[in-house]
Amino acid sequence: MAITIEGRSFIGSRDGATEGSSFRAISPATGETMEPEFHSAGAEEVNLAAQLAAEAFAVYGNLAGKARAKFLRTIARRLEEIAEQLVERAGRETALPEARLRGELGRTCGQLRMFAEVVEEGSWVMARIDRAEPDRKPAAKPDIRCMLRAIGPVVVFGASNFPLAFSVAGGDTASALAAGNPVIVKAHPAHPGTSELVGHVIRDSVQECGLPEGVFSLLFDSATSVGTQLVQHTLVKAVGFTGSQVAGKALFDLAVRRPEPIPFYGEMASTNPLFVLPGAAAAHGERIAADLYGSFTLGAGQFCTKPGLVFVEEGRPCESFSATLREKVSSAAGFTMLTAGITSSFGRQAAKREQESKTKLLARGGAGATNASASATALLFAADASTFLGNPELAEEHFGPSLLLIPYATKQELLECASSLHGHLTATIHGTPEDLRANADLLQILETKVGRIVLNRFPTGVEVCHAMVHGGPYPASTDARTTSVGSLAIYRFARPVCYQNFPDEALPDELKRQNPLSLWRIVDGKPSRDPA
Amino acid sequence: MAITIEGRSFIGSRDGATEGSSFRAISPATGETMEPEFHSAGAEEVNLAAQLAAEAFAVYGNLAGKARAKFLRTIARRLEEIAEQLVERAGRETALPEARLRGELGRTCGQLRMFAEVVEEGSWVMARIDRAEPDRKPAAKPDIRCMLRAIGPVVVFGASNFPLAFSVAGGDTASALAAGNPVIVKAHPAHPGTSELVGHVIRDSVQECGLPEGVFSLLFDSATSVGTQLVQHTLVKAVGFTGSQVAGKALFDLAVRRPEPIPFYGEMASTNPLFVLPGAAAAHGERIAADLYGSFTLGAGQFCTKPGLVFVEEGRPCESFSATLREKVSSAAGFTMLTAGITSSFGRQAAKREQESKTKLLARGGAGATNASASATALLFAADASTFLGNPELAEEHFGPSLLLIPYATKQELLECASSLHGHLTATIHGTPEDLRANADLLQILETKVGRIVLNRFPTGVEVCHAMVHGGPYPASTDARTTSVGSLAIYRFARPVCYQNFPDEALPDELKRQNPLSLWRIVDGKPSRDPA
Repeated sequence: MAITIEGRSFIGSRDGATEGSSFRAISPATGETMEPEFHSAGAEEVNLAAQLAAEAFAVYGNLAGKARAKFLRTIARRLEEIAEQLVERAGRETALPEARLRGELGRTCGQLRMFAEVVEEGSWVMARIDRAEPDRKPAAKPDIRCMLRAIGPVVVFGASNFPLAFSVAGGDTASALAAGNPVIVKAHPAHPGTSELVGHVIRDSVQECGLPEGVFSLLFDSATSVGTQLVQHTLVKAVGFTGSQVAGKALFDLAVRRPEPIPFYGEMASTNPLFVLPGAAAAHGERIAADLYGSFTLGAGQFCTKPGLVFVEEGRPCESFSATLREKVSSAAGFTMLTAGITSSFGRQAAKREQESKTKLLARGGAGATNASASATALLFAADASTFLGNPELAEEHFGPSLLLIPYATKQELLECASSLHGHLTATIHGTPEDLRANADLLQILETKVGRIVLNRFPTGVEVCHAMVHGGPYPASTDARTTSVGSLAIYRFARPVCYQNFPDEALPDELKRQNPLSLWRIVDGKPSRDPA
Repeated sequence: MAITIEGRSFIGSRDGATEGSSFRAISPATGETMEPEFHSAGAEEVNLAAQLAAEAFAVYGNLAGKARAKFLRTIARRLEEIAEQLVERAGRETALPEARLRGELGRTCGQLRMFAEVVEEGSWVMARIDRAEPDRKPAAKPDIRCMLRAIGPVVVFGASNFPLAFSVAGGDTASALAAGNPVIVKAHPAHPGTSELVGHVIRDSVQECGLPEGVFSLLFDSATSVGTQLVQHTLVKAVGFTGSQVAGKALFDLAVRRPEPIPFYGEMASTNPLFVLPGAAAAHGERIAADLYGSFTLGAGQFCTKPGLVFVEEGRPCESFSATLREKVSSAAGFTMLTAGITSSFGRQAAKREQESKTKLLARGGAGATNASASATALLFAADASTFLGNPELAEEHFGPSLLLIPYATKQELLECASSLHGHLTATIHGTPEDLRANADLLQILETKVGRIVLNRFPTGVEVCHAMVHGGPYPASTDARTTSVGSLAIYRFARPVCYQNFPDEALPDELKRQNPLSLWRIVDGKPSRDPA
């Protein structure tokens, strides 16, 4: 049975009011507005959501991992049950193709289940035990045990470009819930109906699992007041955000300027430089160029990991490489973007590039989408390495189907370009084994610039797994110590708590002497599953 | 042979200039100034130290764990070689007793060797490996590996209250060096001679181990310009600080307002509440009171973990408890504090408490130290729980030998007091098994307020071990996700880097398929030491 979308926030189990300012979803494909009207949450509703979350934390933060796992799996199961309605609504709100949305739903459910497995198994808490030595001289050594605990209510901002996997039940929500934190989601206004459907599923799952209502709230707002109030709310203890650098930096500033600063995990701007080394360019540069075209236009270039810069040594291989790219771009059809706002921002940046003539426009794709306000065309720019070095703004993210080709003259120039980079999510190298041996210094520079380095593949298509790092030095993220994708993400929403001289009965199960949960623990400095 | 203290900064292997403003160490015991004159580093020297550190990082950040371990052990050995000179100078600069300083030196060398063991063994990098599945449908799964890497030059501020264990070769320096980061120390001006001696040892160790000079610099400054310049320097990637809330917050603000914000680990103010539950108070309240006296006056009350608040239920046991404390405090001799500044700050806060009459002064110890400007007397204040709840400033740290006794009337009032607390490093409960069962709700509140909970012992005397957490919610620290003591501290100065589709020869040894370092790794989600 289809869920009726009501256009109201969920404050715990309660429906939001309909008094505040309202907005509607807009189809990027047709420009038409959709039913129903969505109502922005008011300040009192934001406050109530935070209070309910804080109350819920006292229960949910102490819930066994198995119970949290059941909750996450319930959400996944219920999402799959409304797959048709979700994909239909998300398709209309985002213009993303059905196959992509089905894949994204699978990924969303997959990561909920991955976190369920992690917290059910339980060793993620990094239990550490130093046993007492009562006879140690000059002073007895006390029994000391520590483990990670949840930190408290977490605010998650839905992202525009992944209406499922980085939104209401996306990675931030899944990892925060997994760690034991209540979550308040600020829905992205570009896909409010999709957000409400997913929120409905989570609310029902809270009820099905018998959890306190404050474990989850979903707040709508077409503007910024709900978000700014949430980030500054004294009961909120951490924030997850994926979006633009301007919005992310503004929220980061609020988070660190609070009387009690809190962790702010913002994933923002990344241009994901790609390096085609001489051997690879000579051997199969045209194939790399063709695949790169596919990568930088995937999802209309609206991926955080879109490669936006490509460095190729000047010369004949570079000319073929460039020719292939030009041909691909010139024959490209138009793209429907996620929103009119993203489209106009893409166009403004493109026009600026053309006007300033620091770059040369090598090729432009065709138009052709039905709704002009959300239609964009693929763009290929070029700038030589010295221009790139002299104009740092050329390394800034150009969100959409755009690529900047940078031919370089010498190895030295290549290294200078790499050294000049600010932080990015990824860097990619295409090279033969000889190329890699000859460019170990390039690799070493890139290790300090990004969260993930890809060899002879492309950075788009982020695997959800245990070893993934989706983060990187500023401005790729506001906290390079963490990832927003993969099971490591759970560590963003936890902090260590230490128990000294505790009897077993007062300890959390994770730290009890008999190791009743059979966890891997660090006992006197060594991994062990033995009682301790 | 004794090292000659020259009063100049160490910028890598180079001696600082003698042009800037100068200052001298002052004996807290006698008020006399000491030789030699120390010279503040200039802006160009700060910049050079940062540049040398960034250059050194390219080498040192890629050094094998075994080589870093050797370096840390060299520092420890050389510190022990100058133990007599160190203890003598530190004693004159801080008025701390010889036994304490010898103990602190042992702890300092112990933690250097602990980190040496950790990085020599190597599993701390949390290597994670997800193996490829080329046949996976719908898309092949790539080979993905990640591990923690050093983050870059780290700035460490020496603390006044631990001239060895939290200063030039203290915990922050040891953990940052262990993780592979060059370190620039801003020496605390209260013990510059001690700082120079330790800095000399590290500089010699850099040379003995054949490391790039920029791995370590030591900068003097009697004011704040070197510190503010360091925290804002674009080449600096993280900061460790132990000190006052005012100084820590000011530096935190600089760190997060940089164009590229960086992690700032400030350990600041903590009052370390202690709860004596009814059963324990009745059974042996007087013994607890006597031990508490020892804890809150240890090191003249100048420990970060000094218990400054004690909650006891009203009634006869509380009266005996209070009587014991009053007797102990009244008969206490005067204390020599670390500096005249700390002494006058202690006195100002005490005078404010007396004048405002929110608290009652129950007892005052004797004077008797030789130098009036650095002499303090033990103080015991009391305030009832409702006054405490109405005056949040009573929970603020009063650095020095001072204790506030808070009798409470009901369990409800006790829980309200606990809930009202801001972040602290520790909380302590004294209770019988029955007390603990009856107060599980108190424990649950405290878990959200502190980094470490101590049962039936005292928080002073922080064990350096694998399970220690010396940190806590703001303002105890600026980053409750981390600890500044114990082997977990190494995680403050590292970030994960992910390698996708890498051939073995291009991978760091920690991630190679044969597991040549025999590390514990997470392979496809499970701990393993097998090849993968």
